[in-house]
Amino acid sequence: MLIVQKYGGSSVANAERVFNVAKRILKAKEAGNDVVVVLSAQGKTTDGLIAKAKEINPKASRREMDMLLVTGEQQSVALMAMAISALGGRAVSLNGVQVGIETTNTYSNARIRKIQTERIENELERGNIVLVTGFQGVSTHGDMTTLGRGGSDTSAVALAAALHADVCEIYTDVDGVYTADPRVVKDAQKLDEISYDEMLELASLGAKVLHCRSVEVAKKYNVKLSVLSSMTDAEGTEVKEECKMERMLVSGVAADKNVSRISIMGIKDEPGKAFEIFALMAREKVSVDIILQSTGHDGKQDISFTIGKDDLDIALKALEDNKDRLTAETILHDDSVAKLSIVGAGMATNPGVAAMFFEAMYDAGVNIHMISTSEIKITVLISETDIDTAMVAVHDKFKNASVNMRKN
Amino acid sequence: MLIVQKYGGSSVANAERVFNVAKRILKAKEAGNDVVVVLSAQGKTTDGLIAKAKEINPKASRREMDMLLVTGEQQSVALMAMAISALGGRAVSLNGVQVGIETTNTYSNARIRKIQTERIENELERGNIVLVTGFQGVSTHGDMTTLGRGGSDTSAVALAAALHADVCEIYTDVDGVYTADPRVVKDAQKLDEISYDEMLELASLGAKVLHCRSVEVAKKYNVKLSVLSSMTDAEGTEVKEECKMERMLVSGVAADKNVSRISIMGIKDEPGKAFEIFALMAREKVSVDIILQSTGHDGKQDISFTIGKDDLDIALKALEDNKDRLTAETILHDDSVAKLSIVGAGMATNPGVAAMFFEAMYDAGVNIHMISTSEIKITVLISETDIDTAMVAVHDKFKNASVNMRKN
Repeated sequence: MLIVQKYGGSSVANAERVFNVAKRILKAKEAGNDVVVVLSAQGKTTDGLIAKAKEINPKASRREMDMLLVTGEQQSVALMAMAISALGGRAVSLNGVQVGIETTNTYSNARIRKIQTERIENELERGNIVLVTGFQGVSTHGDMTTLGRGGSDTSAVALAAALHADVCEIYTDVDGVYTADPRVVKDAQKLDEISYDEMLELASLGAKVLHCRSVEVAKKYNVKLSVLSSMTDAEGTEVKEECKMERMLVSGVAADKNVSRISIMGIKDEPGKAFEIFALMAREKVSVDIILQSTGHDGKQDISFTIGKDDLDIALKALEDNKDRLTAETILHDDSVAKLSIVGAGMATNPGVAAMFFEAMYDAGVNIHMISTSEIKITVLISETDIDTAMVAVHDKFKNASVNMRKN
Repeated sequence: MLIVQKYGGSSVANAERVFNVAKRILKAKEAGNDVVVVLSAQGKTTDGLIAKAKEINPKASRREMDMLLVTGEQQSVALMAMAISALGGRAVSLNGVQVGIETTNTYSNARIRKIQTERIENELERGNIVLVTGFQGVSTHGDMTTLGRGGSDTSAVALAAALHADVCEIYTDVDGVYTADPRVVKDAQKLDEISYDEMLELASLGAKVLHCRSVEVAKKYNVKLSVLSSMTDAEGTEVKEECKMERMLVSGVAADKNVSRISIMGIKDEPGKAFEIFALMAREKVSVDIILQSTGHDGKQDISFTIGKDDLDIALKALEDNKDRLTAETILHDDSVAKLSIVGAGMATNPGVAAMFFEAMYDAGVNIHMISTSEIKITVLISETDIDTAMVAVHDKFKNASVNMRKN
């Protein structure tokens, strides 16, 4: 079997944990498998590098940020190779350039275009465990790129797809996908399995267990994906195309604090203004999430939307620079907001779900700023300070109601 | 003018120093020059990475050590690009792979074979300051290599040679080349100029101001080399082919604590044994320095030699593994030794110099273990604990005697 494993930063945070992971990797190898391992940067390495960069230049170019950040994963793979060798195994570390993980040129948020498999295949043939830096690749100019925070999951799944691996195992500090963040919601339950689509929504809504794009890639190439704990031998969660019929309606609650809201007030109510704003955001590579456009009054309208906190400075600067062209009166922003979402396969056909969700928020005294819905999710924007209270309230509501709801 | 500048790790150790260096670089650029800058890893970064590796695997492979260590310089160049950009300049950072600094495959001690200049020239044409990682390159397999400790000097000089730069400026935390380490010998004097050959001996003998191989490359390609302070605007030392005639006989005293001695006792006194030992060391990529072979007695002989402290484990293992074949009775080692050397152009033709050197050692009560001489240097191996005392004593001796000696 060819197995691709991925270990996150906390799983390799210090020498002891590096050895724990090395032992797991060797176990898979000694069972007769070919093993390719994707690693993140150790512990808080990436955060430390970002802090260093911000101290020098808060508006550092994304190219140079990527050049800086890719070093974290490179340190991880080299140290892991040393640990495996100390335990008597044979491993070789490779970075994104050496493997040939070809990406777009969008620094800090690049997408994988193609993965060269020759070097990895050669190393596997020689009997080596292959350790690959997560989170990164190489642009068409030969420059370092990164795939965005959490991108190591995507690296692992894309490698599994390119190598036609039998399974892609994502090891984290939780032992699977839960109905809500178990650190916040005490009685959150682990799911044995979840569909790609539900996992996709949960991931994109801030459930940190899997990087959103990794699930997209897994779905597209039908990669068998498992989420497991790097600390225990507990059975994890399988992510796959179809799940068992008998399921809770709401499969999970997810929170995301990496949200800012921008409101552009008093825009002339004429066609094309919304397009201009979002074309501008696209040009600055800023991903826009929830959008709320007010009905016009006095020939004017307001447009609000949410973006990641990291993008706030860039977005505000672009908007201020184009304020006149956009005919905006005022540009407001708020970075003390957060998103709370519920995800479940049958949600759209069950009108009672939204009502229960809002009731839970009302009971908990949480004010809702914006609402967004899709076939399998409902998201609300609330104050960041309310997020834990709201998550517990919503989880309780659906846990108690789940039996009834499934019967509907 | 095309200027290559090199800044060492202490010159970029923190954000404040990074900005100081950024200002120097911008000054050179704003004076109308094309500027290529080579940087070392920040402060103690490399030492920190080595400690991390040793904690995991004291005998880590050199390939993986290089994979780990090259990240330090990459962080430096990225952070410097951010600082220059914060000050309004334009810079681009490149690592050894991106530039195409092609080296041999000797991990941890690679030699530069060729430098591709196209990418750098393109960036210079676009008006960018080009920041290049020192100390590293890329092997014929596309793997990361390093040039050995202090290798950033060599990177800078080799780049200057490849780019036909007008001058290569090496910035350090001292403001030039001194007659002895000014931290140990209070009245050490700065030299305005020194020849390539003398600098070569001083560098190879442990004067840390320039990496030995950088001087070799400078001499070979006739690169105009300056040693300057990154902290002050003082005039530094020029390293060049010919120096002024009126010179002190002894141009410098150098100490090197990175020395271990190995003694192989009781080897059968038959031809080829010394060759076998040093062929073995060469195969393990261990550089041997001073060699002392005792006259045979009872059909047996002893061979002692010095190597770098880092190579001690590898050398001892190789020797122990081949003990029988080498017909060795005992293999001893001592890593509490150090080398002290004096360097000067006219030394070989001045028999009084050696006598004065040994007299100074005798007066200071320092015992000599081994002696090695060349045309322009005399080196002694002594106990590490004696090194500072010995250095001061020797410097004093020659300082006071210099007038007389020059008259000889």
